[in-house]
Amino acid sequence: MSGRFITFEGVEGCGKSTQIELLKTHLESKGHRVLVTREPGGVPIAEAIRSVLLDTRHTAMSPIAELLLYEAARAQIVEEIIRPALEKGCIVLCDRFADSTTAYQGAGRGLPMEEIERLHHLATQGVWPDLTFVLDLPVEQGLARARNRGRADRMEQQALEFHQRVRQGYLDIAAREPGRVKVIASDESIEAIATAIREQVDALIKLEL
Amino acid sequence: MSGRFITFEGVEGCGKSTQIELLKTHLESKGHRVLVTREPGGVPIAEAIRSVLLDTRHTAMSPIAELLLYEAARAQIVEEIIRPALEKGCIVLCDRFADSTTAYQGAGRGLPMEEIERLHHLATQGVWPDLTFVLDLPVEQGLARARNRGRADRMEQQALEFHQRVRQGYLDIAAREPGRVKVIASDESIEAIATAIREQVDALIKLEL
Repeated sequence: MSGRFITFEGVEGCGKSTQIELLKTHLESKGHRVLVTREPGGVPIAEAIRSVLLDTRHTAMSPIAELLLYEAARAQIVEEIIRPALEKGCIVLCDRFADSTTAYQGAGRGLPMEEIERLHHLATQGVWPDLTFVLDLPVEQGLARARNRGRADRMEQQALEFHQRVRQGYLDIAAREPGRVKVIASDESIEAIATAIREQVDALIKLEL
Repeated sequence: MSGRFITFEGVEGCGKSTQIELLKTHLESKGHRVLVTREPGGVPIAEAIRSVLLDTRHTAMSPIAELLLYEAARAQIVEEIIRPALEKGCIVLCDRFADSTTAYQGAGRGLPMEEIERLHHLATQGVWPDLTFVLDLPVEQGLARARNRGRADRMEQQALEFHQRVRQGYLDIAAREPGRVKVIASDESIEAIATAIREQVDALIKLEL
C-alpha cells in the first residue's frame, strides 16, 4: 500500500480533533491527498454502531459486547474506506483506532489483552497505523475540556479511575512500541503540539515504507 | 446452573416461532418457568444491534463486521438475561443462537470456522445450549414462507445459493454434535413436529445435568 496511516489517540478532551485539522491543512498545502475519519464511525454502518455504543441509555452494556461492537465498527471502516484510501496513496488521519480498544477495553475494563489482540487482527486484516500520536494529558483536565463541549456520552460518563487506567494503558502501548507510537504532552500550546506532530509526519512521509 | 437452555435453528421461514410458542405452552402447562427470547435481539442493546444488522440499506456491510455484530448481540443477551434465567432454574427457549453464526457467517459467508468458534467462546462465556433443534426444510420452501410475511430483511435478501450453504452448514453441525443437535424435518405437519420436539425436551428435563 502506497499511502500512510496515521492515528490519533488519547483520553477524552485531549485535543485530537484540533490537531487532526491542523495536520490535514499542512499536508494538503504540500499537495497530499488526505482522508480524515474517526472511530467508531466514519461510514454509515459504523456510525450506526457508534450510536449503539455511546447511547447514555445503554448502561447495561456488557464489557464483551462493547469490545465486539468497537471491533465491528473497525472492521467496517477498514474495509470500506481506510484500505481503499491507502491503496490509492492517500494519507489517512484517523481519530482513534485499535489502540483505543486496547486502552479502554483492555486497560480500562480489564478484558484479556490476548483476546483483544486477536480481535484487532481479525477486524483490521493487517491494516495497521504507520504512526500513532498519543496526546497525553492529566485525566481531570481532559474530562473538564470534554465536559465543556456539552452532554457527556456513555464513555465520558465512566468514573475517573477508569479514565486513569486508560491513560496508563496508552503510556504502556507507547512503551512497548516506541517506533510507531509517539507520546505528545498535550498541555503545551496548540501550535507547539502541531509542530511536534508535523516533524514526525514529515519524516514518515519521506520514508520509503 | 439449574435451568435448561434450548435453541431453535434453521433457514428463514422454517417454522421456529410457531414451534417455540407451542413448546412454551406445553412447558408452562407442566409448571415450568419459561423464558422465550430471540437472537439477535431480546434486550434493548441487542435489539439496537439487530436493527443495524438487518437494515436493508446496509448493503456495504463487511462480512467480518457482520460476524462481530452477531457476537456482540449474543454477549449482551447472554449476560443480561440468558445466564440469570438459567441460574434461576428457568427453561430458556431461544430463537437462534451461536449455531446461526456458524451456519450463516461460517458456511454461508465462508469465514474461518476457527475464528468463529473462538468468538462463540468469548461471547457466550460458556453458556451453551443443552439441546438444539434444527428445523430442516428445502431452502426454496422456507424463503417462500418468509416472503409471505412481508418485506425481506437484509439476510433474507441474500442469494439462494447462500441459503443452501447455510442449510448444509446446519446439517454439518448436527452431524458433528448428534447428542445436542436434533434435525427435525420441517415439512411435516405442525403437530407432528411439535410432538417430536416435546419428546426430546421432556427427556432432557428428566435428566440430571
